[in-house]
Amino acid sequence: MNQARELNTTLFGSLRALLGERVTTSRGVREHHGKDESYYPYAPPDAVAFPRSTEEVRDITNLCRMHSTPIIPFGVGTSLEGHVLAIHGGVCMDLSQMNEILAVHEADLDCTVQAGVTRKQLNEHIRHSGLMFPIDPGADATLGGMVATRASGTNAVRYGTMRENVIALTVVLADGRIIKTARRSRKSSAGYDLTRLFVGSEGTLGIITEVTVRLYAIPEAMSAAVCSFRNIAGAVDTVIETLQSGIPIARCEALCATTMRAINAYSKTNYPEQPMLFLEFHGTHGSVEEQARLVQEFARANGGMEFQWATRAEERSRLWQARHDAYFACLQLRPGTRCVSTDVCVPISRLTECIVETTRDIDRASMPIPLFGHVGDGNFHCVILVRPDNEADLAEARALNARLVNRALDMEGTCTGEHGVGFGKMKWLAAEHGEALSLMAAIKRAFDPEGLLNPGKMVAP
Amino acid sequence: MNQARELNTTLFGSLRALLGERVTTSRGVREHHGKDESYYPYAPPDAVAFPRSTEEVRDITNLCRMHSTPIIPFGVGTSLEGHVLAIHGGVCMDLSQMNEILAVHEADLDCTVQAGVTRKQLNEHIRHSGLMFPIDPGADATLGGMVATRASGTNAVRYGTMRENVIALTVVLADGRIIKTARRSRKSSAGYDLTRLFVGSEGTLGIITEVTVRLYAIPEAMSAAVCSFRNIAGAVDTVIETLQSGIPIARCEALCATTMRAINAYSKTNYPEQPMLFLEFHGTHGSVEEQARLVQEFARANGGMEFQWATRAEERSRLWQARHDAYFACLQLRPGTRCVSTDVCVPISRLTECIVETTRDIDRASMPIPLFGHVGDGNFHCVILVRPDNEADLAEARALNARLVNRALDMEGTCTGEHGVGFGKMKWLAAEHGEALSLMAAIKRAFDPEGLLNPGKMVAP
Repeated sequence: MNQARELNTTLFGSLRALLGERVTTSRGVREHHGKDESYYPYAPPDAVAFPRSTEEVRDITNLCRMHSTPIIPFGVGTSLEGHVLAIHGGVCMDLSQMNEILAVHEADLDCTVQAGVTRKQLNEHIRHSGLMFPIDPGADATLGGMVATRASGTNAVRYGTMRENVIALTVVLADGRIIKTARRSRKSSAGYDLTRLFVGSEGTLGIITEVTVRLYAIPEAMSAAVCSFRNIAGAVDTVIETLQSGIPIARCEALCATTMRAINAYSKTNYPEQPMLFLEFHGTHGSVEEQARLVQEFARANGGMEFQWATRAEERSRLWQARHDAYFACLQLRPGTRCVSTDVCVPISRLTECIVETTRDIDRASMPIPLFGHVGDGNFHCVILVRPDNEADLAEARALNARLVNRALDMEGTCTGEHGVGFGKMKWLAAEHGEALSLMAAIKRAFDPEGLLNPGKMVAP
Repeated sequence: MNQARELNTTLFGSLRALLGERVTTSRGVREHHGKDESYYPYAPPDAVAFPRSTEEVRDITNLCRMHSTPIIPFGVGTSLEGHVLAIHGGVCMDLSQMNEILAVHEADLDCTVQAGVTRKQLNEHIRHSGLMFPIDPGADATLGGMVATRASGTNAVRYGTMRENVIALTVVLADGRIIKTARRSRKSSAGYDLTRLFVGSEGTLGIITEVTVRLYAIPEAMSAAVCSFRNIAGAVDTVIETLQSGIPIARCEALCATTMRAINAYSKTNYPEQPMLFLEFHGTHGSVEEQARLVQEFARANGGMEFQWATRAEERSRLWQARHDAYFACLQLRPGTRCVSTDVCVPISRLTECIVETTRDIDRASMPIPLFGHVGDGNFHCVILVRPDNEADLAEARALNARLVNRALDMEGTCTGEHGVGFGKMKWLAAEHGEALSLMAAIKRAFDPEGLLNPGKMVAP
């Protein structure tokens, strides 16, 4: 744990006057907020505040600014690149008590929620209306956090990422002003796209307090299947052909044989321990059948076996739960380890080549490294299992990640498809963006001239 | 025509040295570039330059900056809010000679083109590959212009607007630097979304020289139909129910009886002169049939007649040509007039109410005012036919537009769904965005501190 900083007592007194018991410097709470799902060491904030309204977020922001104290927004702490670590101290703003669903507009297929609402909470709330919010990064993240990291996950191939699904945001700026980034209409050409600028800004440009997102009608039919392949290239080629045919597949995830072994052990399943595709089709009964038939044909031609179906809701849930638990299942392959998660994304035409080259690195590595990902988007993850205090493991993991990122950049890809920059990926942005990075820094300076919003993340101002 | 300004002779000499005959101060060329499709008076630039490469755009930009001379990017001049008018003089940068298709990546479903490529040129080029670029604002605009105004049109309900379909841009900044806004991968969480910031920036933040966009597989089946209704509310309700059912309709356009009368006269068609929906379905043969059957049921329940089908490619083309010609057809309702085009967009639940209230204004107006639009997006246009030199007509049109914009804003809508701000909509941005407008101004100052990029448009710095 980092050296404990003392929070300015005047600031703490003012926060107490504002929030009562909803601000604390207790060691346990600070430690809980000084860590995310990454392998980076603890960096606890000096205090944690639990606002319940946009106005309270504004007031906390104003107090922190008067004392030149950093502010770190926090959802549920499931980020993977150190986004929430208080590396320069300051006040963590935990938005989990801002969990009210403010409005559901069924006819407009949208809803507005406070930033602390989680995706499962939202889906539970709207289920009776026949609507769903499909973006699914695996973790039960908050909507605010998902906006901040431009999250996506298994459904993005059909429904897009947070970038395509946020309609408007309420944001508290560094100077305490409250803005709305857009109106609620589906489209607009009225000015610069502030909404998209805050999507993926990781708390460095403002604090997102309310989120309006698109909703979708729950399809008449949803059907999932798994299909094993002789090699991962066959699985990826099946997905490429599916997309090129315009088949609106809802999910298509590839998993390597090591991942399947981990899943079988962890989830008590008995899938073939071979490269696999997990697929899902949404539509009417007729269109789901038709989509599945076409994809099965592509799979067969690429060395795939017969589909194993999961049509009932419980079977589908079990299947996707197994997929979502892949991360935790993999950790059990080497007990006591933590994970260095990679996250490159490349144009899909380069995906097979990128995965095959990476597999060669994996074969040479000293630790088990499962690989799986959202192949429809060209995005995949290696789960590098490291002993957290073992410098050799960490060095090997960092070297493997560096090789992978460079490989992706050479293929016109990105260092992060969905996890975000945090501070873990900052060192790659110059290679990825070149001169454009200085434009990002200029935006940061214009929005947060004193550098108090989540400092040390994303871009250096 | 505005007072002719004299272009600095040193600047003109330098431009000549750079571009030879591809820069001119000829009156005819300047006049052609001092006007768009709007009713605003001519504002010709002092010179027009025709660059052929990103590097030439950079060199022109550097020369203009040295002489504190405004730069106005120009595509084919089909904008509707005075976007390209040189209201502060300067050099018009006509990008129409930058019309090379640089790369088509079939497996990745994307392509990269120079900014002067038009959408029809692109579709012609890729047709043999079974791909299409679906965004269709009616006019055969350049891709660069479509990016700059965040264009959309009839297919947006299914395929999104330019916001959802641009992958990356090459941009020349005000200081002459050349940046790429993103890599070519489908998704990325690596930094602020510069791509979306330039989409809709109307030449005020940088000059877009290359565009990478998504492509789509040409569907196995495409089928179009028209359906007449007793009233426009029945048409709109049919569309709302269609969207709520998750039917992936490709196009759904509503047209009022006056518009249908104009179309019949102009396009020699014999559609019923009643409120109509123009519909299009994309998918497999089976899914197109299924979609159409469901929508026909909704239509019947809302007072719609039997669908009249257009399944063959030529029939579909004729139908959509008639729809696209609606604007020109309407102009013929009152020969010698020009059009003040409105462009509000509201949440779809408010669309019927917004259209019905607007229809009351139309009934009281002294001129014919056809109404039609992209109802699936909540976006519609009134074509207010004014005699260009008649101050009473113009005042009446402005008043009607003002009432309509205020109505849309009261309904959580926007003053412009797809035409953009230019200078015609600048006066509404404060009402629409409140404090957020100052953030847009801050971005403008950060990107273009000297205010040389398309000055007098979008936001005041």
